[in-house]
Amino acid sequence: MKRIGIFTSGGDSPGMNACIRAAVRTAVYKGIEIYGIRRGYNGMIKGDIYKMESHSVSNIIQKGGTILRSARSKDFMTKEGRQEAYNQLQKFGIEGLVAIGGDGTFAGANTFYEEFGIPTIGAPGTIDNDLFGTDYTIGYDTAVNTALDAIDKIRDTADSHDRVFFIEVMGRDSGYIAIPCAIGGGAEIVMIPETKTSINEVVETLRSGWSRSKTSFIVIIAEGDDEGNATEVAARVQKELPHMDARVTILGHVQRGGAPTAADRMLASQLGIACIDGLLEGRKNVMAGVINSRLTYTSFTDTITKDKPINPAFLKMVDILSV
Amino acid sequence: MKRIGIFTSGGDSPGMNACIRAAVRTAVYKGIEIYGIRRGYNGMIKGDIYKMESHSVSNIIQKGGTILRSARSKDFMTKEGRQEAYNQLQKFGIEGLVAIGGDGTFAGANTFYEEFGIPTIGAPGTIDNDLFGTDYTIGYDTAVNTALDAIDKIRDTADSHDRVFFIEVMGRDSGYIAIPCAIGGGAEIVMIPETKTSINEVVETLRSGWSRSKTSFIVIIAEGDDEGNATEVAARVQKELPHMDARVTILGHVQRGGAPTAADRMLASQLGIACIDGLLEGRKNVMAGVINSRLTYTSFTDTITKDKPINPAFLKMVDILSV
Amino acid sequence: MKRIGIFTSGGDSPGMNACIRAAVRTAVYKGIEIYGIRRGYNGMIKGDIYKMESHSVSNIIQKGGTILRSARSKDFMTKEGRQEAYNQLQKFGIEGLVAIGGDGTFAGANTFYEEFGIPTIGAPGTIDNDLFGTDYTIGYDTAVNTALDAIDKIRDTADSHDRVFFIEVMGRDSGYIAIPCAIGGGAEIVMIPETKTSINEVVETLRSGWSRSKTSFIVIIAEGDDEGNATEVAARVQKELPHMDARVTILGHVQRGGAPTAADRMLASQLGIACIDGLLEGRKNVMAGVINSRLTYTSFTDTITKDKPINPAFLKMVDILSV
Amino acid sequence: MKRIGIFTSGGDSPGMNACIRAAVRTAVYKGIEIYGIRRGYNGMIKGDIYKMESHSVSNIIQKGGTILRSARSKDFMTKEGRQEAYNQLQKFGIEGLVAIGGDGTFAGANTFYEEFGIPTIGAPGTIDNDLFGTDYTIGYDTAVNTALDAIDKIRDTADSHDRVFFIEVMGRDSGYIAIPCAIGGGAEIVMIPETKTSINEVVETLRSGWSRSKTSFIVIIAEGDDEGNATEVAARVQKELPHMDARVTILGHVQRGGAPTAADRMLASQLGIACIDGLLEGRKNVMAGVINSRLTYTSFTDTITKDKPINPAFLKMVDILSV
Repeated sequence: MKRIGIFTSGGDSPGMNACIRAAVRTAVYKGIEIYGIRRGYNGMIKGDIYKMESHSVSNIIQKGGTILRSARSKDFMTKEGRQEAYNQLQKFGIEGLVAIGGDGTFAGANTFYEEFGIPTIGAPGTIDNDLFGTDYTIGYDTAVNTALDAIDKIRDTADSHDRVFFIEVMGRDSGYIAIPCAIGGGAEIVMIPETKTSINEVVETLRSGWSRSKTSFIVIIAEGDDEGNATEVAARVQKELPHMDARVTILGHVQRGGAPTAADRMLASQLGIACIDGLLEGRKNVMAGVINSRLTYTSFTDTITKDKPINPAFLKMVDILSV
Repeated sequence: MKRIGIFTSGGDSPGMNACIRAAVRTAVYKGIEIYGIRRGYNGMIKGDIYKMESHSVSNIIQKGGTILRSARSKDFMTKEGRQEAYNQLQKFGIEGLVAIGGDGTFAGANTFYEEFGIPTIGAPGTIDNDLFGTDYTIGYDTAVNTALDAIDKIRDTADSHDRVFFIEVMGRDSGYIAIPCAIGGGAEIVMIPETKTSINEVVETLRSGWSRSKTSFIVIIAEGDDEGNATEVAARVQKELPHMDARVTILGHVQRGGAPTAADRMLASQLGIACIDGLLEGRKNVMAGVINSRLTYTSFTDTITKDKPINPAFLKMVDILSV
Repeated sequence: MKRIGIFTSGGDSPGMNACIRAAVRTAVYKGIEIYGIRRGYNGMIKGDIYKMESHSVSNIIQKGGTILRSARSKDFMTKEGRQEAYNQLQKFGIEGLVAIGGDGTFAGANTFYEEFGIPTIGAPGTIDNDLFGTDYTIGYDTAVNTALDAIDKIRDTADSHDRVFFIEVMGRDSGYIAIPCAIGGGAEIVMIPETKTSINEVVETLRSGWSRSKTSFIVIIAEGDDEGNATEVAARVQKELPHMDARVTILGHVQRGGAPTAADRMLASQLGIACIDGLLEGRKNVMAGVINSRLTYTSFTDTITKDKPINPAFLKMVDILSV
Repeated sequence: MKRIGIFTSGGDSPGMNACIRAAVRTAVYKGIEIYGIRRGYNGMIKGDIYKMESHSVSNIIQKGGTILRSARSKDFMTKEGRQEAYNQLQKFGIEGLVAIGGDGTFAGANTFYEEFGIPTIGAPGTIDNDLFGTDYTIGYDTAVNTALDAIDKIRDTADSHDRVFFIEVMGRDSGYIAIPCAIGGGAEIVMIPETKTSINEVVETLRSGWSRSKTSFIVIIAEGDDEGNATEVAARVQKELPHMDARVTILGHVQRGGAPTAADRMLASQLGIACIDGLLEGRKNVMAGVINSRLTYTSFTDTITKDKPINPAFLKMVDILSV
C-alpha cells in the first residue's frame, strides 16, 4: 500500500485533529503518501481531496473540531454515490482508508469494501463512548470534563432554599457522559436511557432530601432519557413540588468543543498510529481501540452490533456518595 | 464607629468573597471590629452573626459564591422584621453596615436607615452590570468570560450546512452580558431587552447568510428578550426555516459561578476597602463604585432610580464585525 | 470494625478531597463511624482528630488540596512517635485506618501494623503516578492536564526564528508526567530520568530541525532528569547554539493544584469506597488501585518495592509524531 | 484611501487576531481593500503581502497568537530596508497602514512616515500595558488572568510549615502584570521594577509572618525587578532563612498565549475598527486607545516618550490585604 486517504465523519469530537495528525505523521515516517478527504464521504464523492504533509498537521493537536471537516452523507448511502467515491479514489490512486467516526461511518465502510474492495481502518471519534471495541472513544474524556466544569460552577452559587438544578448533558442512547458527571459533580440524581428513573422517584428523593434539611440539589439528565429532556423533566417535577425553585441548564454543543484533554490526545495519537500500522499490516474493516491499556482491532461488524454496557457499580456509586 | 457588620444579599456573583475579604482585612488593619452576618437580611433578623478576623477570610479570594451565604428576605420587607434586625444589631453593638448586593438590597438599606438610623455602604455585587454608579459590577466580567468560553467551544464544532446555534445568556432586563458575548463570540445576531429584534429579522439575516453560502450561525439571546427564551425563539425560527438544524444551549446558573477574573478581584478588593473607608469617613446610604478608574460613591437613591444604558456603538459593532 | 480514621500524607494531589469524601460517605452509608486525622501522622501523634459526618465532606469533591491537610512527619519515624500515635487512636477507639498518600506513607503504615496491629488500607494519592499496584494514581491526570494547558499557551505564541522553549514539569524519579506532556503538547524532545538523552542529542535535534527550516521547538524536561533542570539544560544547550533564543518555563507547584479532572474524581471516588470496603472485609496493609478497569488490592510491600516502568512505545511516539 | 495594509509586530499578545479581524471586516464593510503583511516589517520588505477578505478572518477571534505572524526586523532599522518596504507598498498600491504592536513598532512607523509619507495608525498590542495613550493594552487582561490562574493552583496545595512560593511573572520594565497578580492572588509580597523592595525587607516580612504563625507565603516577582529573577531572589532569601522551603515557578511565555478574555476581545475589536476609521478620517501616526471608556488617538511621539505610572494606591492594597 502506497497511498492512503483519511477523513472524519459524523458528529465531530475533540481529539479528531490529534488523530489525523498522528496518522499523517506516521504515514510520512513510514514513507507512505497520505491524502486528506474533506467533509467525510461527501468529499470522497466530490473528489475534495488533497495531499497532506507533515506540516499540514502542525499546531492542530490542541484544537477542537476537525481540520478535515465532517458531515453526514446521503449520497454515500446510494450505490451511485459509492461508485463515484470509488472513481475518485481510483483517480487519486488511494488504496486504503482511515475513517475517524462512529458506527454509521463504519457501516458505510463495510458496504464500500464489499462492493469495491477498498479496505478501511477506523478510529472511534465520538464523544458518546458507546462503541464496542474500545474502553474509551476519542473525545469522551474531554466532553465529560467540559460538562463537569459547568456543573462545578453551578455548585459554586449560594445555597438557597428549595433550589433544584436540572442539567442536561449529551447522550442520546446512553448515560456514559451523565454518569461521571453525576459522580464527579456530586449530583443527587442521575437519569439515563439505560435505567428507568420515574418522575415520582425524583420527586421522592427531593422531598426526602428537604426533610433532612438539604436545600440544594443537582439532577443530571442524559438528553435521551425516557422521561424527556431537562426542560420537560423540570416542568413535570415542578408540578409536583410547586414551592421548588427549578433552574435548567442545557449544555448542548458546548460539550463537543474545546481543546482535547491529555487522555484524549494520547488515545487519539495511539489510534492514529494504529490505523496506519493496521493498513500496512494488511488489516481491513476493523476499528482500532484501546482495551485495558492494550491496542486492539475489532471488526466493524462487532463494533456496530455489540453492546458496551455501563458498569452497574457506577450507578450504585451515585446513591452511596450522595448519602 | 467601632463595630461594623457585613453581609451579601440577592443573587450571588463571583467576586463577592474577594469583596468580603477586602472589607474584613481593611477593618482589621484600621483597628475596627467586623462581624459577618449570614444569609443577608435573614441572618440579621435571626442574629446569625459572628466576629470575623483576618484569618476568617484566608484563601477565599479565588472562590465563587459567598462564604456569608446570600438570600432574599421577605421578613425584612415588614416593619417587624426590620425592628428585629435592629434589635440584633444593637445586641452585637454594630453601628454600620457593608452590604454587597443589588438594588433590592440597597432599597432595603435606605428604608432601614430612615427607620433606625443605621448607615450602610453598598458594593455592587451582581453579574447583571445594570447598576447606575459604577462602570462594572462585581461578577460581571467573570460571567461574560464564562459565557464566552462556552461559545468558543460551540464555535469549535465542525461547520455543517444550515446549522444555527441559539445560546441563551443571563440578563432579565438588560443585554449587558449578551453584547460582549456576541461581539467577543463572533455571533451573527444578538437579541436583547433594550432593542426590538423581531423573529422576522432573525429569519431574514439567516436567509441572507445562506445565500452568501454561510453555513453556521450563532444567535445570542438575553434571557429577558421580548421574543422569548432561546427554546422559544429557536422553535419560532424553525417554523419559518424548516430545513434549518437548530441547536439550543441554555447556560443558566453556570454564569454565576467560577473563580472570579482578575478584573473582578481587583474591583471587589477596591470596593471592599472603599466600603470600610466610607463608613469611617461618615458616609451613609451610598454605593461604592469605580467610574473611569476613579473610586466614587453614589447615593442608593440614584443607584436605584437611574438608568445605565448600553453603549449604542456596541450594537453597531455586531453588525460590522459579522459582515 | 466500628470506627475508622482517615488521613492524607506526603505531597498533596488533586482528588484527595474526592477520595476523602467517598470514604466518609461510604462509612456513613454502612453505619461505621469515621474520624478525620489532620496533617497525616503528625495529627495522629498529637490527637488532632475529629468526627466526620456526611456534611463534613459537602462541596469538596471539586477542590484541589486536602481538607485534612498533609505533612511529612519526622516523629512517626521514631518508635516513641508511633507509640503516641497508637495511644491517641486507642483514646478515640479507632480500629482501622485509611491512608491517602504515597510509598513513604505506606511504609509507615506497614511498620505501624507490625508494632501495634492497626490495619491500614491505602489509596494512591500522588501526582507522580510511579506507584506499583494501580494504572493511575489520584491526581496524575489533573497534573498532566494542567501542564498541557500551559504548553498549549506557549504553542500559541508567534513562531520566531530559532526560538526554543524549555519547559520543566514535575517528576523527580520518573517521566510519567513528561511523556504525555511531550506527546500531547507536540514537543520535539523529551528528557526523563528513565532514559539517557544527552545535551549533544538535544543540540543535534535542534540543528537538524533548523536545517529543515523548523523555527520553533518545545523541549519537555522532567525535573529529575540527569542532565539537570530546565534552567541548566537551557544554559548548556545555549552554549552550543549561541544564536538560539532560549526561553524557560518552570511550572512547579502549579501542577499540584486545580480542580481534579473527571477521571481523577472517578478514580478517587472508587478508591475511597474500596478503602472502607476493604477494611470491613478484613483486608490490611494493602493499597487499593484500579488495573485494567478492575478494582485491585496490592500489598504495601509490593507497592513500595516493585517498579512500574513507562510503556516504551510512548517514547517511540515522540519521535514519530515530531517528524 | 482605497487600499490599506495591516501587520503585527514585536512580541505577540492575545487579542491581536481579534484586532486584525475587526480591522479587516471594517474595511470590507466600508468598501476599502485591505492587505495582510506577514511577519511585521520583515514581510513588508520582502513583499509577503496578500489580499484579505471577510472570510480570511473567520474563526480567529478566540485564538491566541497572530495569524499574520510577528517578528522584529533589523532590516527596517536601515534606510535601505525602509526604501524596499516602501517599494513593495507602492507595488501593491497600499496607501496607509494599521500596525498592531508596541513602542518599537510605532517608532519605526514615525520614521517611515517622515521619509516616505505613508500614514500609520497603531493599536497597542502587548501584554505589558506600559504604553501611554490607553488604559489597557490588548493582551494585558488575558496575561494577568493566565498568571492568576496559575497562582490559584499553587494556593490550592496543602499548607506546609515554612513554605514560600516565589512566582515570576512577566514585566521587564513594569509591575503592571505583577500588581493585580499580587492583589488578586492574595500574595504577601510583590517585587516590581518601579519600587525598591530589598531582600532584607522580604526576609523581614517572612520572619514576621512566621512569628504570627503564618506558614505559607506567596511572593510575586516581576521579571525585571532590580533584585533579580525568581530563582536568584529565592536563593538569596534562602541564604538568610535556611529552614525555609522555597519553591520557584517561572511562568514565562505561558502568559503570552491562550484565548483572549472578553475584555481583550472587546478592546481589540474597538481598536481595530478605530484604526480603519482613523485612516479614513485622515489621521496619521497616532495610536488608537481607550481611556475612561472613550476612544482616543494619541500621537506616536507621546506614546513612545510619556510614562504611564502605576496607581500607587494599588501598592498600598497589597499591604492592607495581606494583613
